[in-house]
Amino acid sequence: MKGNVIVGQSGGPTAAINSSLAGVYRTAKDRGAAKVYGMLHGIQGLMQERYIDLSEYITNELDAELLKRTPAAFLGSCRYKLPEIHQDKGVYETIFSILDKLNIEAFIYIGGNDSMDTIKKLSDYAIVTGHPTRFIGCPKTIDNDLALTDHTPGYGSAAKYIGTSVKEIIRDSFCLEYDKGLVSIVEIMGRNAGWLTGAAALARGEDCSGPDLIYLPELPFNIEAFGTKVKKLLAKKPSVVVAVSEGIRLEDGRYVCELGQSIDFVDAFGHKQLSGTANYLASYIAGEFGCKTRSIELSSLQRSASHCASRVDILEAYQVGGAAVKAADEGDSGKMVVLQRLSDDPYQSGTEVKDVHKIANDEKLVPREWVNKDGSYVTDEFVSYVRPLIQGDVSPVMVDGIPRHLYRHI
Amino acid sequence: MKGNVIVGQSGGPTAAINSSLAGVYRTAKDRGAAKVYGMLHGIQGLMQERYIDLSEYITNELDAELLKRTPAAFLGSCRYKLPEIHQDKGVYETIFSILDKLNIEAFIYIGGNDSMDTIKKLSDYAIVTGHPTRFIGCPKTIDNDLALTDHTPGYGSAAKYIGTSVKEIIRDSFCLEYDKGLVSIVEIMGRNAGWLTGAAALARGEDCSGPDLIYLPELPFNIEAFGTKVKKLLAKKPSVVVAVSEGIRLEDGRYVCELGQSIDFVDAFGHKQLSGTANYLASYIAGEFGCKTRSIELSSLQRSASHCASRVDILEAYQVGGAAVKAADEGDSGKMVVLQRLSDDPYQSGTEVKDVHKIANDEKLVPREWVNKDGSYVTDEFVSYVRPLIQGDVSPVMVDGIPRHLYRHI
Repeated sequence: MKGNVIVGQSGGPTAAINSSLAGVYRTAKDRGAAKVYGMLHGIQGLMQERYIDLSEYITNELDAELLKRTPAAFLGSCRYKLPEIHQDKGVYETIFSILDKLNIEAFIYIGGNDSMDTIKKLSDYAIVTGHPTRFIGCPKTIDNDLALTDHTPGYGSAAKYIGTSVKEIIRDSFCLEYDKGLVSIVEIMGRNAGWLTGAAALARGEDCSGPDLIYLPELPFNIEAFGTKVKKLLAKKPSVVVAVSEGIRLEDGRYVCELGQSIDFVDAFGHKQLSGTANYLASYIAGEFGCKTRSIELSSLQRSASHCASRVDILEAYQVGGAAVKAADEGDSGKMVVLQRLSDDPYQSGTEVKDVHKIANDEKLVPREWVNKDGSYVTDEFVSYVRPLIQGDVSPVMVDGIPRHLYRHI
Repeated sequence: MKGNVIVGQSGGPTAAINSSLAGVYRTAKDRGAAKVYGMLHGIQGLMQERYIDLSEYITNELDAELLKRTPAAFLGSCRYKLPEIHQDKGVYETIFSILDKLNIEAFIYIGGNDSMDTIKKLSDYAIVTGHPTRFIGCPKTIDNDLALTDHTPGYGSAAKYIGTSVKEIIRDSFCLEYDKGLVSIVEIMGRNAGWLTGAAALARGEDCSGPDLIYLPELPFNIEAFGTKVKKLLAKKPSVVVAVSEGIRLEDGRYVCELGQSIDFVDAFGHKQLSGTANYLASYIAGEFGCKTRSIELSSLQRSASHCASRVDILEAYQVGGAAVKAADEGDSGKMVVLQRLSDDPYQSGTEVKDVHKIANDEKLVPREWVNKDGSYVTDEFVSYVRPLIQGDVSPVMVDGIPRHLYRHI
């Protein structure tokens, strides 16, 4: 590379997003980039000229290894939506003047659907104005809802944590006996896509019957039908464990969490913050059947649990980071790196680049045929799809009993 | 040993309680017990003659290793309080006739304060009636609130999980910028004792500033003073992380969680179920300062996370199990095994037995001098106490990407 590279992180943090950052840094250095800058808090920080020289933080190979094991966005993240080009050209002029000042040849943005909107607009602007900087997206989201890629880095680690934690919750729930039974409801992230919630099925194995019911947001949720199922289960077993997506909705479109109390917060992309689904359902079941209930929200733990990361995920995240730099170096722009599944048994994957216009602002949902007929569990096909993505462990670097992270002092 | 051994588990599950069970089994077999029975769901199950022969489940050394890595009570637990002997002699006659039928020489009960009440009453009854069975308690509780023991098995693993998860939450919270800041409130178990909540301070290290505030249940909680502290912190930093015990109360004795919504459930020992403290405080802070807030309950995850267990804890749990059998075999009864800290640097511990009458129904709280002056953080002494207990890891036996457990099919 003749120029410099700048990289940013955007959207919700994951356990793997810093592994992609490490991959970008390594490949950019290998390919001769003089400087690799990191924008602080994504495009929003860059507009305020907030950036760092990554070589000041990744000073040796141990730092790079720590970075791969550090959860959440090392550079800080943002949820900022660029205006349409015709609405506010000034924003683009500001950004490109900063890129010129830093002699940026490749601009890599690690993020999800919303972040790919940023790559799309910046590369469109570069094409229209004949600007030489290349813009490549690097997929990242625990939600696994990006189009055109087999899966997204960050998903495998979240799925592994969810499968592990749900199994531990099942063990815990089984312990105590209650006269009328115990119903535990586990709330899992996923506004519209059920990839994360479906991963609860990973708890099932020779040694564990798995959760009893799994409800994804792709299908309408019927509370009465749910109650009937729980009642039947309680007649057979003392402990019932249910996994629900935070985003499940009634037939009429209302979120289940809206039926109880909900925090009414809308982000820059207009997304409602959801929470309280499990709580509401736990009260409903307790009221209907008089049994003991409890609700468990996996909350942000499921996206930041680096201590339980998947090796496949962390390695693939590293690879897509490198592949993004390679694509830019070879002349691509307005593209996102995607993961392709080359083989299932043994699992093998590779990378490709695809037009970001076909990815941005789109959402990939769980196919209907991967959910059972009455919408209360995922099928074996679903589990076969996710199982390879949770394989292998990444040992945390333990210092005095706690995992060590790479840290940017501020 | 000439007779047989029976072992039960009681009270809240932990990540280490099965390691004690493995220790009991191993030492009982080593000392020549013909049979090692496990009561199902503690003394409550035993009264219904529900028990198993443990050798049918622990068939080889791999099974024993899996058992040590399996969270929650393998035998099932209970929360059953025996009546006073003079109130209902029939209950005792039932229990002792079952013990006679099974030729029980040693009765080992793994549990917390409430469970030691069971050992106390049974051994008292044996003394009064001249019955030869010996009754030994084996300490277990994540709460670490048992008297006379330096610490309790189960606490170290929960503390390690809490320190690790709080650190990951701090990383996660730092990522996104909000105009008025983000306040994350983490709710940690501990009704009256703050041992678990204080373990949030383990997140602090060279690479992490740790949580900003820590509130234990031992001291009255002042909401206005808390608000003032948060306001000052928000003026200095974009993300504030607070660890609170579920059991914090106002000066007038009301639980903070009662100020919001609370689930009103009282167990057999008359303990209120607490939940919603973080939720209430998050709403309070959002209302006062207009910043973004979120609440995270570590819930049952903190007591069942075997995938993040402490090696010191799992080994000590195993040792106290063995020491309980040894004590019974050597003629002790009405005693509980305690852990003694022999040395801090390097950390070394040993076991002893103490009179259960001095332990049952008592609670060991965090000393006042281990909390700072205004009650908003633990001191270095607290951290020095807990740090040795979280050292080392126990690798889960991973099968297809998920930890394997030993399972009792029912």
